[in-house]
Amino acid sequence: MLTVQGDIPQRSADVLSRVRARRPRVHCITNAVAQAFTANVLLAMGAVPSMTIAPEEIADFVLQSDALLVNLGTLDAARRETIDAAVEAAGSRRVPWLLDPVFADRSKLRAAYADALVRRKPTAIRLNAQEFAALAGCSPSRETVARYAAECSATVGLTGEVDLIADATRCSRVANGHGLMARVTALGCAGSAVAAACLAVEDDALVAVAAALLIFGAAGELAAERAKGPGSFAVEMLDAIYALDRRAIVERARVT
Amino acid sequence: MLTVQGDIPQRSADVLSRVRARRPRVHCITNAVAQAFTANVLLAMGAVPSMTIAPEEIADFVLQSDALLVNLGTLDAARRETIDAAVEAAGSRRVPWLLDPVFADRSKLRAAYADALVRRKPTAIRLNAQEFAALAGCSPSRETVARYAAECSATVGLTGEVDLIADATRCSRVANGHGLMARVTALGCAGSAVAAACLAVEDDALVAVAAALLIFGAAGELAAERAKGPGSFAVEMLDAIYALDRRAIVERARVT
Amino acid sequence: MLTVQGDIPQRSADVLSRVRARRPRVHCITNAVAQAFTANVLLAMGAVPSMTIAPEEIADFVLQSDALLVNLGTLDAARRETIDAAVEAAGSRRVPWLLDPVFADRSKLRAAYADALVRRKPTAIRLNAQEFAALAGCSPSRETVARYAAECSATVGLTGEVDLIADATRCSRVANGHGLMARVTALGCAGSAVAAACLAVEDDALVAVAAALLIFGAAGELAAERAKGPGSFAVEMLDAIYALDRRAIVERARVT
Repeated sequence: MLTVQGDIPQRSADVLSRVRARRPRVHCITNAVAQAFTANVLLAMGAVPSMTIAPEEIADFVLQSDALLVNLGTLDAARRETIDAAVEAAGSRRVPWLLDPVFADRSKLRAAYADALVRRKPTAIRLNAQEFAALAGCSPSRETVARYAAECSATVGLTGEVDLIADATRCSRVANGHGLMARVTALGCAGSAVAAACLAVEDDALVAVAAALLIFGAAGELAAERAKGPGSFAVEMLDAIYALDRRAIVERARVT
Repeated sequence: MLTVQGDIPQRSADVLSRVRARRPRVHCITNAVAQAFTANVLLAMGAVPSMTIAPEEIADFVLQSDALLVNLGTLDAARRETIDAAVEAAGSRRVPWLLDPVFADRSKLRAAYADALVRRKPTAIRLNAQEFAALAGCSPSRETVARYAAECSATVGLTGEVDLIADATRCSRVANGHGLMARVTALGCAGSAVAAACLAVEDDALVAVAAALLIFGAAGELAAERAKGPGSFAVEMLDAIYALDRRAIVERARVT
Repeated sequence: MLTVQGDIPQRSADVLSRVRARRPRVHCITNAVAQAFTANVLLAMGAVPSMTIAPEEIADFVLQSDALLVNLGTLDAARRETIDAAVEAAGSRRVPWLLDPVFADRSKLRAAYADALVRRKPTAIRLNAQEFAALAGCSPSRETVARYAAECSATVGLTGEVDLIADATRCSRVANGHGLMARVTALGCAGSAVAAACLAVEDDALVAVAAALLIFGAAGELAAERAKGPGSFAVEMLDAIYALDRRAIVERARVT
């Protein structure tokens, strides 16, 4: 397997510049807890969010979007209907989409539904170790994540202390981030939205997901240096994403 | 058409004083993304928000309110049922109500539904240029906005670089605001809620809507002077609305 | 009736230490306005929130939780179905649960539903004076609150200028807090979630609820000393909860 490393920092900075210049529309199907923070993260980075989850109008919104985020969120019947219509619309126009199978480890219903969505070929999947174990049926390692990515024909972004991004043949590791990111709700969900925005402007999904995790992690480090606790940290995250420049991305990058 | 200009700043300050003294109840039917920030803006200015969107109880809440905000938000079947019941309750007790036809330009379903609501005679309509074009069928100018206001028997607040407020015979322009307001989700929705709160204490709807846009824009300018990015800007907005005094309103007013 | 006073401050500090050490899972059924802030308050204090309200999966989540919060929130049919399933699951595993009958005074539907939930024997009930009057049928005093607590076989936390916590035989008063707490949406809802987290680690429900109100009130006082208005106050609240130590709890405690 090829390790992609050297040019990720520069390419991440390029991706962020393109988001700011092109202002991609990112439609987010996400949970109510995460909606406002996710929208604010996207606005801070230069993307344009929309968040409707009504099944009657979801196709109209997705067809006008440059990327789609599907977060399992609150998994009721209406939400599943919305997701089905959104994924179909995305497929019909080749809109890249990212699946975030939140809490797939907490209920069998979620695991089964996440599994069915994986088969509909998301461009990328972002999950944590427990969610990976629930879906892939094994604990995560470079090999198992790459195998799962190959099975799914998707780029997989496994987040944790060190983030591991893999597709069938390549992988990359991003070690940026800060512990306070676990103390703000919806941070992970918002990180997935950042990845969706990057997919809108970067065709190489491995680069797009790695860029998102690097950008988000570097902003988290900057925010932590200025924050007194999780409240000010969330505020500083948005300011840091807004102000993040090429130099900070390249200098802070811990890509291995 | 009469241009209303000279006394708007002083009357805006009067409106804010009355909101703080009377603490009007403002019921908001709005989208999940906007709910918390909207409630916080209303609390910061001295109003008392309620936000339930359950059709079973909406009439009880609206009948106890001093103004109603109808934001199309997430437009599912339950939401439409709630809006119908709320508008009927508002009409039965002459509770002033404001329509915010969010994203009417993004789906035909929304445009048609917004159009049907306009015919139920909202006291005021707040929208942006794209939403205006989708509903009025023409691009906005002083003349087309006034004509649309006359057709709807409503006061129309068209927001943009310069806000234009018009009814059938009068118009006013408010140029306050700051670019960071476009980088925080639900800012426009919250501005509509401020206008609903002003309608609760001011019978002249043109004055109420102009006051709201002036108050909100001036607070945005103050917040921008203190903010480092969109995260701190949203926090400073709430603090600025809370602390805004007559002098700041009058001195900052750019009403033409 | 026994007044519990002397050891509440020390025991409150113990409760917070246990929350931080054990990281209890707290499942919250709460309204959309309150969800994000509630989750952030729980994360700031060291608990682990989950917030799904889908009836299909609620039992799975509650059975994996250490405490349950039931906030009436937006009271639609799906929400009631979810609450029913959650309360049943909590009962089957003796998961402590707290009822927050938000706005029970605003609609008969809410009052009747809250009443039915009270009969399902919540561990604790947190409400304000108007909600108490709507449910107990009388204005609150030490005697009426204790009588209501006895009737409900629950600990009752009545919040106001001074909070009154009572069960059938004991009561305690907590006078901590700050006026800005009424200017941020969902503060009361978040306080109820803190109480649920305390119930997860403290078997004496009177102590758990008093600890929660003391911890939350003390954090509010600290936040108010640092805030310029309601926006910065909400941010400072989260930072204060995160940083709150034994000394601040004990020194600030106003328990009578």
